Amino acid sequence: MRPHHFLICVVVLISGSLLAQPPRGPMVISPQVHPDKKVTFRYLAPLAKEVKLSAQFEKAPLSMTKDSIGIWSVTTNPVKPDIYPYSFVVDGITVMDPANVDFFPNERFKASLVNIPGFTPMVHELRDVPHGSVNYEYYPSVQGTTGSLVVYTPPGYDKNAQQKYPVFYLISGTTDTEETWFKVGKTNLILDNLIAEGKATPMIIVMPYGNVQARIKEQKGGAKPADPTGRESTDALSRSKEFEDDLVKNILPYIEKNYRTRTDRNSRAIGGFSRGGGQTLRAAFGNMDKFSWICCYSSYLSQQEIEKQYPAIVNTPDNTNKQLNLFWIGVGVEDFLYNQTAEFMNYLKSKQVRYKSHVSLGGHTWMNTKLYLNETAQLLFK
Amino acid sequence: MRPHHFLICVVVLISGSLLAQPPRGPMVISPQVHPDKKVTFRYLAPLAKEVKLSAQFEKAPLSMTKDSIGIWSVTTNPVKPDIYPYSFVVDGITVMDPANVDFFPNERFKASLVNIPGFTPMVHELRDVPHGSVNYEYYPSVQGTTGSLVVYTPPGYDKNAQQKYPVFYLISGTTDTEETWFKVGKTNLILDNLIAEGKATPMIIVMPYGNVQARIKEQKGGAKPADPTGRESTDALSRSKEFEDDLVKNILPYIEKNYRTRTDRNSRAIGGFSRGGGQTLRAAFGNMDKFSWICCYSSYLSQQEIEKQYPAIVNTPDNTNKQLNLFWIGVGVEDFLYNQTAEFMNYLKSKQVRYKSHVSLGGHTWMNTKLYLNETAQLLFK
Repeated sequence: MRPHHFLICVVVLISGSLLAQPPRGPMVISPQVHPDKKVTFRYLAPLAKEVKLSAQFEKAPLSMTKDSIGIWSVTTNPVKPDIYPYSFVVDGITVMDPANVDFFPNERFKASLVNIPGFTPMVHELRDVPHGSVNYEYYPSVQGTTGSLVVYTPPGYDKNAQQKYPVFYLISGTTDTEETWFKVGKTNLILDNLIAEGKATPMIIVMPYGNVQARIKEQKGGAKPADPTGRESTDALSRSKEFEDDLVKNILPYIEKNYRTRTDRNSRAIGGFSRGGGQTLRAAFGNMDKFSWICCYSSYLSQQEIEKQYPAIVNTPDNTNKQLNLFWIGVGVEDFLYNQTAEFMNYLKSKQVRYKSHVSLGGHTWMNTKLYLNETAQLLFK
Repeated sequence: MRPHHFLICVVVLISGSLLAQPPRGPMVISPQVHPDKKVTFRYLAPLAKEVKLSAQFEKAPLSMTKDSIGIWSVTTNPVKPDIYPYSFVVDGITVMDPANVDFFPNERFKASLVNIPGFTPMVHELRDVPHGSVNYEYYPSVQGTTGSLVVYTPPGYDKNAQQKYPVFYLISGTTDTEETWFKVGKTNLILDNLIAEGKATPMIIVMPYGNVQARIKEQKGGAKPADPTGRESTDALSRSKEFEDDLVKNILPYIEKNYRTRTDRNSRAIGGFSRGGGQTLRAAFGNMDKFSWICCYSSYLSQQEIEKQYPAIVNTPDNTNKQLNLFWIGVGVEDFLYNQTAEFMNYLKSKQVRYKSHVSLGGHTWMNTKLYLNETAQLLFK
């Protein structure tokens, strides 16, 4: 978050201001993180009847109070240092924080991000260490469409012109975009910090966009009006299969052609969160010749699907165990997918498929994805 | 924009959903661009009393009407193909479009972007041509802070391991971020397309964050509560000077160390929009030994400032003209800075300082910045 109060002096030079934009009024600083880790949130809305703060560190929205010039504010209790999504609910309407440029890239909801730094620097914080680079790339995707990727290259990638790197394919969740692991998951900073401490093997991390059908609809047209019932018959498995094909047939070849990668299965990891975790399991189980490291964050596959689609995984567990350098499963006890994920782990155990697991506190959140990425990134390619 | 209606089926696997999040209701498709270039905008708000569309292609907000399930919508008249910022005004509150992931990176306001494609592909549209890459970089900035840059490298940059490229430093406007030229200005697509057509010299484009003081405040702390008066004494010139120092002492050396650049003044261009245009003129006039191509978009310097700070520019015009490969000034007749920019051009003319100019239609908008970038990128480094 950047404080903006000093920008007012150049308010005559606003760029991109809407023609119909109202007068700007006073600048507002929000969020403001205090040294004791309390946070003050502010929102300018002189005409609003009620403004609440909806934040992932609170179980329920907090009421905000309006001052004499119409700035609503609330100061929280001390918050556990981390990065949290939050929104304002203004007379029932959820909005991002206009004073905060840090936002949650997502196709369904709009949330801002508040970064509460640790008393000592946390693994996802910007530190004075060598930094990798995050590259936005286009690649030839399915049905003649052009796909988008976000690719992390480790510090020194451009200088070590001979070195080849292992690759971690990292998939975000439902309605997330290819930017979410970067902007919310802080993949680049976590890896910069782990590599600086010698805790992670320098690797390339490829963050694809998980929803291939959306790309096709976007580029080929055919967007239809909203379904007023909100119901639509689709098939998660076939949609996941479409992504898996794009990953294996388009993304891997593009990355291995354009980046200095090691291309053996021991140098390829795949991981994902939520829907991306399901896509991870399907892509890995369906392509054991290509991936040997699996990181499943807050997701699972059903026993039925495994036995129907990937019987060899559970029928020849010794082979599965021999092939996998890592099979890691993480979930929070408050995650709404906790029960299914627990069943999944118990099922694998009953079939003698080996895996490592981390059952954490918390729910189906990006606070937990950072925790899981930090833990698993230290295990990969070793 | 990506259509999302088919995501509903995996609504149980939503990632990052706020703990206190309300039920999601039906999916909404917005915006929907029709073949005749009319656009339908939709916003789900069953409880709202009034919803309007505020879009840069309309002089005033358009009223939207609510259907039986609470989806507000409006369909516009045919819109001139381009990319436009827009927002919804919901009971007086300006919000982004929750159904649209394309947004305007800015520190002061929140707007979404609608892309109305041309009947034939426009210069900023994604085409099936070789694509460059857009890199997010950190660099050591002023006062021990870490700065952020967005860097475009042209198609083939990674393959032509010997080739060195000229560099265009391109600065965005007030309250914009280092992402705005990429996400709104479509710098990468414009250059990809011009290079594919042989109209632009392959170049590296460096897009810095223009507000150095904000970075210092952010990283060193010291954010203060909002100034309720909205007034603050600051000095545009000194703030611009701070950026100029960062550019010359930190950004140039970082780029020339980490990218394959040509480092003579004939291989360095500088340009910017709005506040970034002022910073461009100051950085160029103050560092004629470093830059020889100037692109000023919708901005100006006052006669007083030039005569006080950069007298040599106007006192020895022959030398100025000899040193500059290009001095380009663009402004729209509806731009609120039109008069000052016209005075600026007339003043330069009276001093026999040569420049090229493009007085366009339209105002102080990112539709015009794309127009100006497209025109000037074809002139640089030739």
